[in-house]
Amino acid sequence: MARIAYQEKVLSKNDELAAEVRERLASRGVFALNLISGPGAGKTSLVERTAAWASGRLRAAALSGDQATDNDAKRIRSAGIPALQITTGNECHLNAGRVLDLLDAPELDDIRLLLIENVGNLICPAAYDLGEAAKVAVLSVAEGDDKPLKYPALFQRAELMVINKLDLLDRTDFRLDRAIANAREVAPHLDVLSLSCRTGEGLEGWYRWIDDRLGRM
Amino acid sequence: MARIAYQEKVLSKNDELAAEVRERLASRGVFALNLISGPGAGKTSLVERTAAWASGRLRAAALSGDQATDNDAKRIRSAGIPALQITTGNECHLNAGRVLDLLDAPELDDIRLLLIENVGNLICPAAYDLGEAAKVAVLSVAEGDDKPLKYPALFQRAELMVINKLDLLDRTDFRLDRAIANAREVAPHLDVLSLSCRTGEGLEGWYRWIDDRLGRM
Repeated sequence: MARIAYQEKVLSKNDELAAEVRERLASRGVFALNLISGPGAGKTSLVERTAAWASGRLRAAALSGDQATDNDAKRIRSAGIPALQITTGNECHLNAGRVLDLLDAPELDDIRLLLIENVGNLICPAAYDLGEAAKVAVLSVAEGDDKPLKYPALFQRAELMVINKLDLLDRTDFRLDRAIANAREVAPHLDVLSLSCRTGEGLEGWYRWIDDRLGRM
Repeated sequence: MARIAYQEKVLSKNDELAAEVRERLASRGVFALNLISGPGAGKTSLVERTAAWASGRLRAAALSGDQATDNDAKRIRSAGIPALQITTGNECHLNAGRVLDLLDAPELDDIRLLLIENVGNLICPAAYDLGEAAKVAVLSVAEGDDKPLKYPALFQRAELMVINKLDLLDRTDFRLDRAIANAREVAPHLDVLSLSCRTGEGLEGWYRWIDDRLGRM
């Protein structure tokens, strides 16, 4: 019981800060996505691709979470948009306070799109609202099509599931229809896009999804 | 500070229970491994392969952790050894209490080898001693060779890193030498094996590692 009471307190404090982030982002007209996946599913590659697409089209920036190193922020900056690293140390997820602390950073001035790349973890980040407009679950073909059933919380809270690494389909037992059926079994509302950040296949659907959401703001 | 005090209390209680598990396993001559990885790196496949190898050679059993479903335990039983599922719900890792609760299960009678497959999470399980003889970190080629730098805690606490999915090497940017250098940068003591549960390549090294450790008990 002590554990549950403690966790509820942490989450309720986080929800307060997330509401503040959401309000400030809305007042600045910023559309923010919280990208969540296991390690190595391709969040950084997706942000790199999106950075290149955004260049000359709309101002975008990224926040990138990891337990250690600022390698991801460096990769994203090389792809053409400002990026700030959030190094979490022992923490296994980002929280709204970390995002709030960075909202006034000059890198985020006048942006329309904020890509928040969470810590590589399919479980814990799902519980923490960061003030984003939507959570996006990224699942790699190499991870297997059973993951939505085994770790349902993220898929239930996400608006969109991006299936990445389509280029590995022929080398695995992953079946797209089964992955989608498994995800919809736990989250009937879920949008699904499949793509490959490596080859570029399917990325136009992702860009269209962002454009559509920006247009509805 | 409240968070740190709370976490220390949880971990110290866990350490007590883990010591009890360790003592009871030792008195029964059981060698226990705690397999930890991100989701979909191949823990279950490695346990399935090990189950088939163990058949007729030594009595083995498995405990398998997931947030939901008992799919993994079913897969492992089909591969020839008893397996019990631990469904963790909201929890993102196994803990020693969960293992202790199962030590008297008939499935674990007279075993010599206990394979504990943790929840698919590269981060949180590393902090929880389960009373195992050794932690094994499983890293998939598809995840990228940078992961030991970004999530060092597991690699620092593991005795062995198993690099799985060698069969995908030619389709990714993963470099074995770089993965090993990255892992040894944060954990100089680490043993490393590379293999493919899909093709069977390299598995004899894994079986030899287990045999060697069993012989030293």
